Amino acid sequence: MELHAARLDEARRVAIFGGTHGNEMSGVMLVNLWVQNNTEVQRKGVEVQPFITNPKAVEKCTRYVDTDLNRAFTPENLSTLGGGDLPYEVRRAQEINRMFGPKGSPEAYDVIFDLHNTTSNMGCTLLLESSKDHFNLCLVLLNEHPLLKYSTSRSVAKHPVGLEVGPQPQGVLRSNIFESMRDILKHALDFIELFNAGMEFPPCTVEVFRLSERIDYPRDDNGNIIAMVHPNLQDCDWEPLNPGDPMFQTFDGKTIHYQGSGTVYPTFINEAAYYEKQQAFATTRRESLVASAIRKA
Amino acid sequence: MELHAARLDEARRVAIFGGTHGNEMSGVMLVNLWVQNNTEVQRKGVEVQPFITNPKAVEKCTRYVDTDLNRAFTPENLSTLGGGDLPYEVRRAQEINRMFGPKGSPEAYDVIFDLHNTTSNMGCTLLLESSKDHFNLCLVLLNEHPLLKYSTSRSVAKHPVGLEVGPQPQGVLRSNIFESMRDILKHALDFIELFNAGMEFPPCTVEVFRLSERIDYPRDDNGNIIAMVHPNLQDCDWEPLNPGDPMFQTFDGKTIHYQGSGTVYPTFINEAAYYEKQQAFATTRRESLVASAIRKA
Repeated sequence: MELHAARLDEARRVAIFGGTHGNEMSGVMLVNLWVQNNTEVQRKGVEVQPFITNPKAVEKCTRYVDTDLNRAFTPENLSTLGGGDLPYEVRRAQEINRMFGPKGSPEAYDVIFDLHNTTSNMGCTLLLESSKDHFNLCLVLLNEHPLLKYSTSRSVAKHPVGLEVGPQPQGVLRSNIFESMRDILKHALDFIELFNAGMEFPPCTVEVFRLSERIDYPRDDNGNIIAMVHPNLQDCDWEPLNPGDPMFQTFDGKTIHYQGSGTVYPTFINEAAYYEKQQAFATTRRESLVASAIRKA
Repeated sequence: MELHAARLDEARRVAIFGGTHGNEMSGVMLVNLWVQNNTEVQRKGVEVQPFITNPKAVEKCTRYVDTDLNRAFTPENLSTLGGGDLPYEVRRAQEINRMFGPKGSPEAYDVIFDLHNTTSNMGCTLLLESSKDHFNLCLVLLNEHPLLKYSTSRSVAKHPVGLEVGPQPQGVLRSNIFESMRDILKHALDFIELFNAGMEFPPCTVEVFRLSERIDYPRDDNGNIIAMVHPNLQDCDWEPLNPGDPMFQTFDGKTIHYQGSGTVYPTFINEAAYYEKQQAFATTRRESLVASAIRKA
């Protein structure tokens, strides 16, 4: 553990993204609200910009129009030419990268909060992309993985923060989920204001869930799903899944058990949007991350 | 009450519709299963046909492609010419009407079970279209209304039965909802087999909820939603809503109370698909229906 506080640049420019998936309603409605009246998200010494990232998908109340915007921020997409011939979300990714990035550059926004909902019973989850980002270190799902890359919208920022709150069906706005998300944003912005004002935050240890593996639904030879998430696993995000525990239930009533080598913590269980991504749930492993004390440089 | 059993024609031809809305997964998966292997739905003396009504919407996992198939069975749509220029669901409605109707004719299928899921906490609900259909008389929502007409897919049958089971998010298959739906269908088919075999069913009184009014979300002058279903009402389908009870919560924290003249029983509370139909929930009134004894003619 470091004895002295890590010195970090203050966060002068913060964006709040809603509608990266157009049918995840809490983020869409919150950002629309704040675009009309930003009083609630103003903080001293911070420029806060609420922004609808995929307005066409929001209008259609669909996840995306041509391709998943939240997987579109790859180096290839961001540098490709083609203008009007490109898929809508690739063009939009380039626009967003120009406005809030460029990704990896000193001109990039300091923090982007990206507001998402899930049909999974995940509660309030922060999705972080690096275990070395002391600025960010709440439930934390760490998407830092040698192989699984996401190329998210928020990744154009220096400190990208995904906020995933559920369960909420696609196309539905639930007051409890909406208010939770609003509350977390309020605290996050308060934190940034205090940090910019020079407050030192002490070191802390945070329990996080590191993304491990994606588990697909059992399928037949034609790729058709032949089993559902087992009732014992459904809605049990973040709870331990041990070798031998029920995992799937086939349509003819058989139970399929988890065969891994040790305890894992499933998340994104039965998320609607992940059927097309061949994912019934993701496994994670718990670990402790030590965040050093931080204060502004 | 009638002393003698009403004599009704036996039900020789029964269809089970799934995928009338392509993102309501329990019905889609059950019907796909039974199309591959119909052993589970075979009954003596009954021809049972499982059928995916909107295969294009199922493929895209969306409610519909051009227009809501389950509102498309109007006399105008069913008689209009135009072939390939017509919206996909209108063409499909004409095909379904030829296969399972024609609507109102002696050639029509006897019974159509139409399998639906809702994001509302409605449990297992039968949707019936007439209070005079003794054949049908289980929670029952009676869509018999002088003004609100639906023109559903199942309406081509002599005895149309909608089955609505929730809560289940769009695009998600939950094992509990799937198994409930499967169980209800099993009992319904058993009933038809016994009826056809000559069993007499005694008269009974059934509590039903008669559709009364549609309540929209509060909106601003531009038509934008400015309030959510109140947490006290969310998930409280079929429970009494009394004058003065909280109904909506505005984004700035105000409560909007129900102002009706008497107790109603809300249903379809916060159904995802009804945002575009300007409906936050529907009110119903409880009534008792007396079904006479029935046996086959």
